[in-house]
Amino acid sequence: MSFTAINFKEKFDKFAEQWSPRVIAEMNDYQFKLAKVEGEFVWHQHSDTDEVFIVISGTLTIEFRDGKVTLQAGEMYVVPKGVEHKPIAQSECQIMLVEPKGVLNTGEETSDLTAENDVWI
Amino acid sequence: MSFTAINFKEKFDKFAEQWSPRVIAEMNDYQFKLAKVEGEFVWHQHSDTDEVFIVISGTLTIEFRDGKVTLQAGEMYVVPKGVEHKPIAQSECQIMLVEPKGVLNTGEETSDLTAENDVWI
Repeated sequence: MSFTAINFKEKFDKFAEQWSPRVIAEMNDYQFKLAKVEGEFVWHQHSDTDEVFIVISGTLTIEFRDGKVTLQAGEMYVVPKGVEHKPIAQSECQIMLVEPKGVLNTGEETSDLTAENDVWI
Repeated sequence: MSFTAINFKEKFDKFAEQWSPRVIAEMNDYQFKLAKVEGEFVWHQHSDTDEVFIVISGTLTIEFRDGKVTLQAGEMYVVPKGVEHKPIAQSECQIMLVEPKGVLNTGEETSDLTAENDVWI
């Protein structure tokens, strides 16, 4: 058992790739992942799970087919399972995702933006 | 479906009670809870689940029987299931907890600090 705090800034400093989530912690069968995002992601959904977005720095908009929500640092949102969504950031935004282990960033879609899963940092 | 961001500061401004977690979001069968803590909590454990602590502001120390970890704002820690722990804060600290719905703040212990469960804010 390690008695070391997990520091978000230190973890973000260790990678530069955008749209490429890095796992920083596991709680039961859930993972906490950090990602740097900029520009428009692809429309996708996760049929089996809700997905939590927490903004650490910057601004993130999540578009839905019938609305959108904009998150600043210190804000979170839960995308319900099965709901199509498209994250967008005008400039680089640092986010934390919380979701079950094994969830792909592009859900059931596969695209150039599909990232390798379960990459720890 | 609501298109409203969940703002940590706004939620913290809505309550003053310490050691009394308030639910702000649910993801599948997990809950995100905010709490204000100060002083020493009781030793306790959760036999069935890990527990995530994220510090939003202030400083939190989590003591274990064989060590301790100190968290600042922007840091997190996962207490493994079954591990006895005691949170301590020298001055008021704002934290977010992530754990399955139904987990009591004092685990399998009952004390004056046992808070009502599943209170949303």
